[in-house]
Amino acid sequence: MKNETLTLNTHRLISGLVAQGVRHFVISPGSRSTPVAILIAERVKAAANLALYVDVDERSAAFFALGIAKTGQVPVVLLCTSGTAAAEYLPALAEAHLSHIPLIVLTTDRPLELTNIGAPQAIDQTNLYGSQVKQSQRLVLQDDGQTNADFIAFQTQRSVLAALTAPKGPVQFNLPLRKPLLPDLRVTPPAIKALAALPTTAALTPTDLTVIEQQLQGKKVLLIAGPEEVMTYRTALLTLSEKCQWPLLADNLANLRGHGPVISNFDLLFQAESDLPEDLQPDVILRFGGTPVSAPLMQWLSQQTVPQYLIGDQQQLADYSLATSHVLAVDEQLFIEELVAVLPAQRTAYWASWRTYSQRLQASLPTTADLNEITTVQTLDQQLPANSRLFISNSMPIRDVEDFYQGQQVRELYCNRGANGIDGVVSTAAGMATAGGANYLLIGDLALFHDMNGLMMLRRYQLNLTIIVINNNGGGIFSFLPQAAATDYFEDLFGTPQELDLAQVARLYARTYQKVTTITALEQALTNQVQFIEVETQRGKNVQLHRQLISDLQVLLAHD
Amino acid sequence: MKNETLTLNTHRLISGLVAQGVRHFVISPGSRSTPVAILIAERVKAAANLALYVDVDERSAAFFALGIAKTGQVPVVLLCTSGTAAAEYLPALAEAHLSHIPLIVLTTDRPLELTNIGAPQAIDQTNLYGSQVKQSQRLVLQDDGQTNADFIAFQTQRSVLAALTAPKGPVQFNLPLRKPLLPDLRVTPPAIKALAALPTTAALTPTDLTVIEQQLQGKKVLLIAGPEEVMTYRTALLTLSEKCQWPLLADNLANLRGHGPVISNFDLLFQAESDLPEDLQPDVILRFGGTPVSAPLMQWLSQQTVPQYLIGDQQQLADYSLATSHVLAVDEQLFIEELVAVLPAQRTAYWASWRTYSQRLQASLPTTADLNEITTVQTLDQQLPANSRLFISNSMPIRDVEDFYQGQQVRELYCNRGANGIDGVVSTAAGMATAGGANYLLIGDLALFHDMNGLMMLRRYQLNLTIIVINNNGGGIFSFLPQAAATDYFEDLFGTPQELDLAQVARLYARTYQKVTTITALEQALTNQVQFIEVETQRGKNVQLHRQLISDLQVLLAHD
Repeated sequence: MKNETLTLNTHRLISGLVAQGVRHFVISPGSRSTPVAILIAERVKAAANLALYVDVDERSAAFFALGIAKTGQVPVVLLCTSGTAAAEYLPALAEAHLSHIPLIVLTTDRPLELTNIGAPQAIDQTNLYGSQVKQSQRLVLQDDGQTNADFIAFQTQRSVLAALTAPKGPVQFNLPLRKPLLPDLRVTPPAIKALAALPTTAALTPTDLTVIEQQLQGKKVLLIAGPEEVMTYRTALLTLSEKCQWPLLADNLANLRGHGPVISNFDLLFQAESDLPEDLQPDVILRFGGTPVSAPLMQWLSQQTVPQYLIGDQQQLADYSLATSHVLAVDEQLFIEELVAVLPAQRTAYWASWRTYSQRLQASLPTTADLNEITTVQTLDQQLPANSRLFISNSMPIRDVEDFYQGQQVRELYCNRGANGIDGVVSTAAGMATAGGANYLLIGDLALFHDMNGLMMLRRYQLNLTIIVINNNGGGIFSFLPQAAATDYFEDLFGTPQELDLAQVARLYARTYQKVTTITALEQALTNQVQFIEVETQRGKNVQLHRQLISDLQVLLAHD
Repeated sequence: MKNETLTLNTHRLISGLVAQGVRHFVISPGSRSTPVAILIAERVKAAANLALYVDVDERSAAFFALGIAKTGQVPVVLLCTSGTAAAEYLPALAEAHLSHIPLIVLTTDRPLELTNIGAPQAIDQTNLYGSQVKQSQRLVLQDDGQTNADFIAFQTQRSVLAALTAPKGPVQFNLPLRKPLLPDLRVTPPAIKALAALPTTAALTPTDLTVIEQQLQGKKVLLIAGPEEVMTYRTALLTLSEKCQWPLLADNLANLRGHGPVISNFDLLFQAESDLPEDLQPDVILRFGGTPVSAPLMQWLSQQTVPQYLIGDQQQLADYSLATSHVLAVDEQLFIEELVAVLPAQRTAYWASWRTYSQRLQASLPTTADLNEITTVQTLDQQLPANSRLFISNSMPIRDVEDFYQGQQVRELYCNRGANGIDGVVSTAAGMATAGGANYLLIGDLALFHDMNGLMMLRRYQLNLTIIVINNNGGGIFSFLPQAAATDYFEDLFGTPQELDLAQVARLYARTYQKVTTITALEQALTNQVQFIEVETQRGKNVQLHRQLISDLQVLLAHD
């Protein structure tokens, strides 16, 4: 049998990954990765519950894998050839590291004797990703012997567990491979010893819990839920909020809006007023999830002197407001259920004040008939079908969604809020769309241009993703920043109009296209399932619109 | 004066870079990088010898800068905002590191108090590029004091020198910046103390030189020139070859073909026959430049037992053939001039044999009338204007150019042969085109797709680059590899057809376009300066064509 060791060990590697729950593989074509690619393809062909995607652009591939992993909270495997191909993964890994997404990266490499010695397509892949991955390890698939065979099966399983252990994140295997690279397809996958994964959820001791309950009992508690896109403790948190009448400020990416009574317009409130009215002031703050999108909320938190609890085992006390006073690195679900069980139901004036205030704020939002960046978000909120997914680009879209999306229907919202890049957005949304159902992406023209290659995956895999592009021909967010004052250099350095013809982009990737100029037209385009919808806006006008809104709110609140 | 320290220190940083020869800046838009971007733009506006380019996609920007730096062998500055933007530079830096290109990377960052603490757009940028850069350093532009001011001016100059010292390569500055970010445009750049750069060229001692001359005198010497795109010792090397009648095997990227008598078809020779005929065998081999493109040549070198000298101070003994027996890390020009001065002119049968053999080989190449991947290269060789530049993509194009491009005119050829990636090719060629004149890019459809964003720079800066796309709808090189045998998985994993409509791509970026199907049509399209020329080929047919050619050669050589 030719290439038996390589074939058997590659099978062990794949079996190890699958044994710990890997179901998705995203491969970029290359020569060095041949044995792993072919044996993955063979395995996927034989198993109905495995999926394989091929993406030529490794940068796009990594974000695509991130999208799959975010949506399903599952480990996803990436595979590429040696050289700069492997370097292309770095942006998505930086995002995955900070947003706790379990990616398993397999970079194939030249063998040791061809590294750092002038051989082609051979960069130094040792620790290529530095601190952007949780661990980095070398596996040698062509060494004989039972010890190495067992090691491969064990280490691959261990790496998936590491990727899934709090805080979740990406791990890398570098796989040096010698020619010949073609595996032997007659070899049957050998059995491996499956590891039983240890439980990773931690609960508080009864004593600790009693202390916390005493600290919360009868207090005006404010709950804050940051980004936690696949929120496993959603029902528990809503139950706690309603039972104790503790208002819940829900970041859009906590995916609580639309699921129950939450406060959704706090960002506008804190933009208009730097502090809360007396009757809304809490005695204690409990925070869940990641860093909220709302910078004004973070600013307010940093100024509070009441106890602030940060709860959960993923965030590792990453709180740039520095306001956290108590950390509970426990499983959120267990913790909340305990609280719900022991705390009594209550009716409070504090809850009523928050609700009234929030409703008044909401009623005061201007309802213009024009289609602009704000009404686009409001229209999506009204129109998108229930149970659909909405991916939101960084920069302006995530800010506008935070302020103007209320959750009129139960939907799932996603965004790359680990490193907040505008790169890889289309590819991540395409990865999300592999989960099926109705999927939407709200994105600006610059972010769309940055990752246009991601559109190829939509066409190739017939993914159902409707893209709504806010086209203000450049970087709209900069008009809000002090940079706008540098008028001599603004358009060249910050505005950066790309004059991208979106109709042609749509045509290139065989997307149905429509440019809409009214709210009604946008609604109709959504109803008609147009795949690529362009909303043209003006950057200057958009700034005025936002500033006017906040100034109107300030007047309203001053008259209270 | 507001923000005086930041403004003054940013001026010192820019002055330090300019003092050591930086003339080109490539910026990607962002907020964190504002003060540096604006003050660079101001400086460029005031100086006719400075140039600024803005590229939205940082991956493309880094390859674009690489293209400028390769073409002019000058240091080029990159600037980006914090987060994944900085991670996007990695592929181009890996290439620059291995191909010895001096890039100065300025990554702006959140201040220390906002790193690793959940703040937005803040990834760990410390040693982000690991071993892909020569050095990585933090500069704090907002600290007061003369010592820090002097340090900034000194370190920036030192970094350019480091980037330019053999082996050349990329360096990084990470610049943490606090708000407010807007510089004060009333501040005049302060004077800095300019460093006088030390000479970096090394010559041999007279004694060493005498020893080497004795070893070469009267011997059959074979000269091999690997990639050295801007070859400073071109004339010297050709003079040496002709005076001593030492045959010179010139890799296309040595840019010697077309400049004088060189052997250009050795790759075909070594593909057809693994060893040389007796009368061509050398007694000594002298190698210059980087790793030759020709893998069969490297294979042959690895089997030779005669002395093999590797000459030059850039390559650092990176020779994966492991055949080098003597290393001379000296300035090539000085070394060659010494040899030319002391060695006598001679006429040898050895030289005559090589020339005869090479001419016979050349005459035996089939001249088909069909347009295919081989005749495309031959047509470019015939048709491209003298003194133009040709950028060649990795994968198939660089191999075909190595075999079928003879240098019918004096031109400059470029390729990313550090890490041999197919990423960033369009952007690098666009960077090359900033040098002006007539520029060409030969590329396959997959590499074109990978870096389509690079086309934006052509449109934005009206760069004169004619692109010839070999469109075989996928990865043509894999059909030559053993992978082609894995028929069940081949098209999905390796062929990867993207069904890219190149006419639409051309239209999107406002390039004039023509698809050509005959050699005459290709010639006319080149004459008419069509900007985007598509040559459609078939992968299977292309393999047959190449295999037939080698087998014909083998028959011919066997009958000698």
